Amino acid sequence: MSATAVRTGVWFIGARGSVATTATAGCAAIAAGLHPAAGMVTETPPFTGSGLPAPTSLVFGGHDTVGCPLPKRAEALAAGGVLPHGLPSAVHAELAAADAEIRPGGPLPGDTRSDEELITAFVADLTGFGHRNDLARTVVVNVASTEPVPAPGERRLPASSLYAAAALRAGCPYINFTPSTGLRTPALQDAVAACGLPHAGRDGKTGQTLLRSVLAPMFMQRALPVRAWSGTNLLGGGDGAALADPGAAAAKNAGKERVLADTLGAAPEGEVHIDDVPALGDWKTAWDHIAFDGFLGARMVLQTTWQGCDSALAAPLVLDLARLVARAHEQGMSGPLPQLGFYFKDPDGGPAALFEQYLALLAFAETLRGER
Amino acid sequence: MSATAVRTGVWFIGARGSVATTATAGCAAIAAGLHPAAGMVTETPPFTGSGLPAPTSLVFGGHDTVGCPLPKRAEALAAGGVLPHGLPSAVHAELAAADAEIRPGGPLPGDTRSDEELITAFVADLTGFGHRNDLARTVVVNVASTEPVPAPGERRLPASSLYAAAALRAGCPYINFTPSTGLRTPALQDAVAACGLPHAGRDGKTGQTLLRSVLAPMFMQRALPVRAWSGTNLLGGGDGAALADPGAAAAKNAGKERVLADTLGAAPEGEVHIDDVPALGDWKTAWDHIAFDGFLGARMVLQTTWQGCDSALAAPLVLDLARLVARAHEQGMSGPLPQLGFYFKDPDGGPAALFEQYLALLAFAETLRGER
Amino acid sequence: MSATAVRTGVWFIGARGSVATTATAGCAAIAAGLHPAAGMVTETPPFTGSGLPAPTSLVFGGHDTVGCPLPKRAEALAAGGVLPHGLPSAVHAELAAADAEIRPGGPLPGDTRSDEELITAFVADLTGFGHRNDLARTVVVNVASTEPVPAPGERRLPASSLYAAAALRAGCPYINFTPSTGLRTPALQDAVAACGLPHAGRDGKTGQTLLRSVLAPMFMQRALPVRAWSGTNLLGGGDGAALADPGAAAAKNAGKERVLADTLGAAPEGEVHIDDVPALGDWKTAWDHIAFDGFLGARMVLQTTWQGCDSALAAPLVLDLARLVARAHEQGMSGPLPQLGFYFKDPDGGPAALFEQYLALLAFAETLRGER
Amino acid sequence: MSATAVRTGVWFIGARGSVATTATAGCAAIAAGLHPAAGMVTETPPFTGSGLPAPTSLVFGGHDTVGCPLPKRAEALAAGGVLPHGLPSAVHAELAAADAEIRPGGPLPGDTRSDEELITAFVADLTGFGHRNDLARTVVVNVASTEPVPAPGERRLPASSLYAAAALRAGCPYINFTPSTGLRTPALQDAVAACGLPHAGRDGKTGQTLLRSVLAPMFMQRALPVRAWSGTNLLGGGDGAALADPGAAAAKNAGKERVLADTLGAAPEGEVHIDDVPALGDWKTAWDHIAFDGFLGARMVLQTTWQGCDSALAAPLVLDLARLVARAHEQGMSGPLPQLGFYFKDPDGGPAALFEQYLALLAFAETLRGER
Repeated sequence: MSATAVRTGVWFIGARGSVATTATAGCAAIAAGLHPAAGMVTETPPFTGSGLPAPTSLVFGGHDTVGCPLPKRAEALAAGGVLPHGLPSAVHAELAAADAEIRPGGPLPGDTRSDEELITAFVADLTGFGHRNDLARTVVVNVASTEPVPAPGERRLPASSLYAAAALRAGCPYINFTPSTGLRTPALQDAVAACGLPHAGRDGKTGQTLLRSVLAPMFMQRALPVRAWSGTNLLGGGDGAALADPGAAAAKNAGKERVLADTLGAAPEGEVHIDDVPALGDWKTAWDHIAFDGFLGARMVLQTTWQGCDSALAAPLVLDLARLVARAHEQGMSGPLPQLGFYFKDPDGGPAALFEQYLALLAFAETLRGER
Repeated sequence: MSATAVRTGVWFIGARGSVATTATAGCAAIAAGLHPAAGMVTETPPFTGSGLPAPTSLVFGGHDTVGCPLPKRAEALAAGGVLPHGLPSAVHAELAAADAEIRPGGPLPGDTRSDEELITAFVADLTGFGHRNDLARTVVVNVASTEPVPAPGERRLPASSLYAAAALRAGCPYINFTPSTGLRTPALQDAVAACGLPHAGRDGKTGQTLLRSVLAPMFMQRALPVRAWSGTNLLGGGDGAALADPGAAAAKNAGKERVLADTLGAAPEGEVHIDDVPALGDWKTAWDHIAFDGFLGARMVLQTTWQGCDSALAAPLVLDLARLVARAHEQGMSGPLPQLGFYFKDPDGGPAALFEQYLALLAFAETLRGER
Repeated sequence: MSATAVRTGVWFIGARGSVATTATAGCAAIAAGLHPAAGMVTETPPFTGSGLPAPTSLVFGGHDTVGCPLPKRAEALAAGGVLPHGLPSAVHAELAAADAEIRPGGPLPGDTRSDEELITAFVADLTGFGHRNDLARTVVVNVASTEPVPAPGERRLPASSLYAAAALRAGCPYINFTPSTGLRTPALQDAVAACGLPHAGRDGKTGQTLLRSVLAPMFMQRALPVRAWSGTNLLGGGDGAALADPGAAAAKNAGKERVLADTLGAAPEGEVHIDDVPALGDWKTAWDHIAFDGFLGARMVLQTTWQGCDSALAAPLVLDLARLVARAHEQGMSGPLPQLGFYFKDPDGGPAALFEQYLALLAFAETLRGER
Repeated sequence: MSATAVRTGVWFIGARGSVATTATAGCAAIAAGLHPAAGMVTETPPFTGSGLPAPTSLVFGGHDTVGCPLPKRAEALAAGGVLPHGLPSAVHAELAAADAEIRPGGPLPGDTRSDEELITAFVADLTGFGHRNDLARTVVVNVASTEPVPAPGERRLPASSLYAAAALRAGCPYINFTPSTGLRTPALQDAVAACGLPHAGRDGKTGQTLLRSVLAPMFMQRALPVRAWSGTNLLGGGDGAALADPGAAAAKNAGKERVLADTLGAAPEGEVHIDDVPALGDWKTAWDHIAFDGFLGARMVLQTTWQGCDSALAAPLVLDLARLVARAHEQGMSGPLPQLGFYFKDPDGGPAALFEQYLALLAFAETLRGER
């Protein structure tokens, strides 16, 4: 088999969402040389020679519970300024191809299938995808809307865990880019331990928490006590609506606060709000207000305002992760990858400061170079 | 001589300025247990056992060209909210003692002394200080107002270099916490090479540049191209007035831009303004606006607003540096100390990202533990 | 009776709170010529000759449920930067005099008195205050912590209404500077109609809403459609703790949103958060994010950050109101005073834009000049 | 002549610039019902029945010194997010028609024509435009790049004054939307006095100054002394480059500061910066920092960040002004129109607060209803 024939599958849970659509369209644009790979860390020099699958070798598919075709979804994203105008038509063929590989997710309301039946169906979808496209491997990436925190005593697995279980059973490395449960449930503990697959998560670090993971270490290093750290996030789009659910917001906020507590030693005063503001579309504004003490207790304040597009921040990280985890699988690694904490709010161990996470990522790139 | 008798001198150039007054009063307050040592990195656990001189063992003196007594200066700082109310009276004795060790600086307008005469006078001041107080060593720290960038062809040494030359000649380790010339002039090159003393500089990194040294690496690590980085600083006090001089502002700004260029590879678009706003007193507000590109060229913006008191930010760093350089001298080190880049906008080499500078500082703390 | 003998009482509900303490201390300072009357609109030229009682003629007293003496409370406010250092001692006599006129409020938990018994007690307190101090009249001003919105079906009057009822019965003009119920309850409708007293309310407009009442008209006048208006308030002190109660926050937010709806025609998207951040003490930070449309739908954003001390903003307005309502009473006016909408989030009618409210206030000043 | 035959010319100085292109394209879009008239005050209810020329009746032409065709310029504006995607093609015919009515401006470098020759040529252009299009009248609107402040002793008229002189001579009402000289030169004093034409200016109030004209009155009305008002503007596009010229920036800043001085009684401390940041394109960010005093001197701060597109803010105001001044001409008015101060930083008299200017504008709308 020639090198060019080795292709890697990327299977999105939430394949018609903003992040997956942006990643699919963007990968096609970068593969075609239409845009530079801004935001893709794996395209920077330290990753040269690490054996990552090339953007041209990625094949996309996935599960979703909505039916809007990817090319149409991409047009909507372009109208909202997330994708460049003209891009959806330029990569229409690639979007249509990915769209043809999207299968119905679940369970939807009224679905009477058991957890086991759903998992079985998902495994079949994954297996079919690999066979049809002659893939060396398929990485499953959860980019679906955030689920509410499961209620105590809830006996059924959340959907994110059903997909994760299917990934393991189908022999697919798994990435959870959301704060949803995924593999992190006692019900999957044995399967995770036995699977022999690499996996990574949880909850992509794209904006406000990214900032926090560089600012909190600064305060710690400079011995400046943080008195209060407050934040407000305004966002529209599907994510805004999903996070207007208090349960989902709680799941998201837990990750944000973990970064502060891990770095500063204790969580400072202050709350985090996530407001659904439909007028903002896919653009997010995050305001942080940090009250800290200087010498002799002088009261000082840092405020930050971050205006970004979450999908455009997440998509290149998702592509990075798919490539890195695919290569880790190729190298025979298994289990959690704390070396990828750079990408997550709630990583599988490792340091909390972005700089240390970056150093760990660079070391991981070195490891990936090695021949198996 | 008992261990408690070992005392270390700290000689401030600009001894009646806000930074020196805050450092002198604050060291007394910390030594007396009146306040925790917020902002002093050398009081955090990694520095335990590094052999640094204790705050109680520091003796203060210095040069200045103005005559306002330190206790009165401290009262003015308390009225402006830089020092806690009540502190000036609580440490009046220590302020009066330091005030008694302040000698006239120079040259003032009309002063007809030659450079050599001035240096000789300064050396005598330093030597007398050491003898009177039975000091193991004296560290000279420049915290005077920023000088204008020397005009090309100017033949006389700037005042900061006269003081620096005097320090070397008196066998004193030297720290330049300002952007002024200090040791960085060809005229002192031979003296620096021959002195066998440790020295550190230049230009303390207290606020806006501190932020830039953690944010710029974030953009680099995340492969997010920075298009423009603009900044405005509003400040009153003596520093505001001094920096209203375009020459002094140019000296200051050079350091700020260096951090971006060093980290990002090239200086992005954007200017830095320093406005004298007397109404703000010793408090500074720094606004930064960073335009960056996300995936597929999506335009994003980060803004930061930093509201701090420069003197209260600088003073603990100045105490840190005096302690570290004193210990380096005790350990027989000489030459520039790039390990202290953590503290400077324009360091003597070493990395530009704060995190790497912090790691270097921690390693330096380890080195200082060793017996000579 | 000589003109100098005419004295006016100001009776604070919440007399030991931050606002009342600041107003009491500040009035004494202004009367003594220690400070200019910044923030007091009634001390600006348009009010000259309106016959308002002079600051020197005001006598303070009130109800409170806590026991901390006013001089001590003032010291705490000075330590928090609300009052200037040195002021509490400079006006100690006036604070002690006001403290001697503070009576226990109620009902406290466990208080078994009926509503009627409480009202009767409060009336006696008011009457005694007037007699002891030979007052021409006493204005009652509610500056107590915000009460929760009364639960539907609640049969007892909220405390704010008990105090208000007592004011009417004692023949005292009444001002409600809080969002609490006060006179606005059906139970007091008849008493209000029959009292023949001027009254004003509700909910002082000090910071974020003040801004909104000038910015919202700007968007309307320029025909720029506001898409979303979001806000976050961070505050500590007693007010922060009180407003951490969702019921109290709801009462407060209703006023904030009313200004937008009244001016813009309909309430835009967006929420308002009030966070209790004890580290901020009596200082408040309010961030607003306004998304609006320009020509052809261009998306634009205005953000505002307001950093103020609520007590220092409220106190001069409270003094203004006491003086204006006292003079209105002297002139024989009765009923609600919509001319004072300038001061309130939720006024008794009148325009919503600050500028129109200011014009109405100036016209009211003219009216007050007239002899009865 | 039927009512539908009455057409009004709008002649832009700077007809290929961002503002003129946006106004021309936007008027066509609004006339065609493609977009609501956001930002056009004259399309709000108070102006119904004022006899303003309808958007459908406006005919565009103008002078410019560059050659880029309007349809192409519009495409560039759409790429930069100033115009909606798809609009340039939707109104291509109207843009092409306006483009055909653009004549070369001047003087360009090397042009040897005298002032009088240039004026004569411009008059001929204006006259031809009116004849060709059978226009009832033509309003000349200066929207060209800001000129530097004329040097003292400069004897030639600046270009803006040559165009203004031509307007008067051709019998055209004149509007100066820029801070350039236009009619405000002694050399044109007699011509202005004798022309019998209405005219309006100077310097459109679109963003930062608009905000200042509502915020400064708020501080005045609340008796809150403003200590310092500082501002930084970041903008790219042609305007950014033009204003990078210190002379042009000085002209622009004079207007910004006038608003503060007029409202607050005296100009507060603080500077205004205008930075050319090409990466921002036609979008502008303006940051203002306002330090003010509260009760008893409490230090408070308001900060505002305005992110808008200057062309999209200016274009509807330019259309407003053209319509209003055309109607004023129809009604036989002449001389300066201080009633239009709502639109200008440096108006021909009238109040400085936006609210008062708005009331004056509404009164003017009433006046325009009257039959001559």
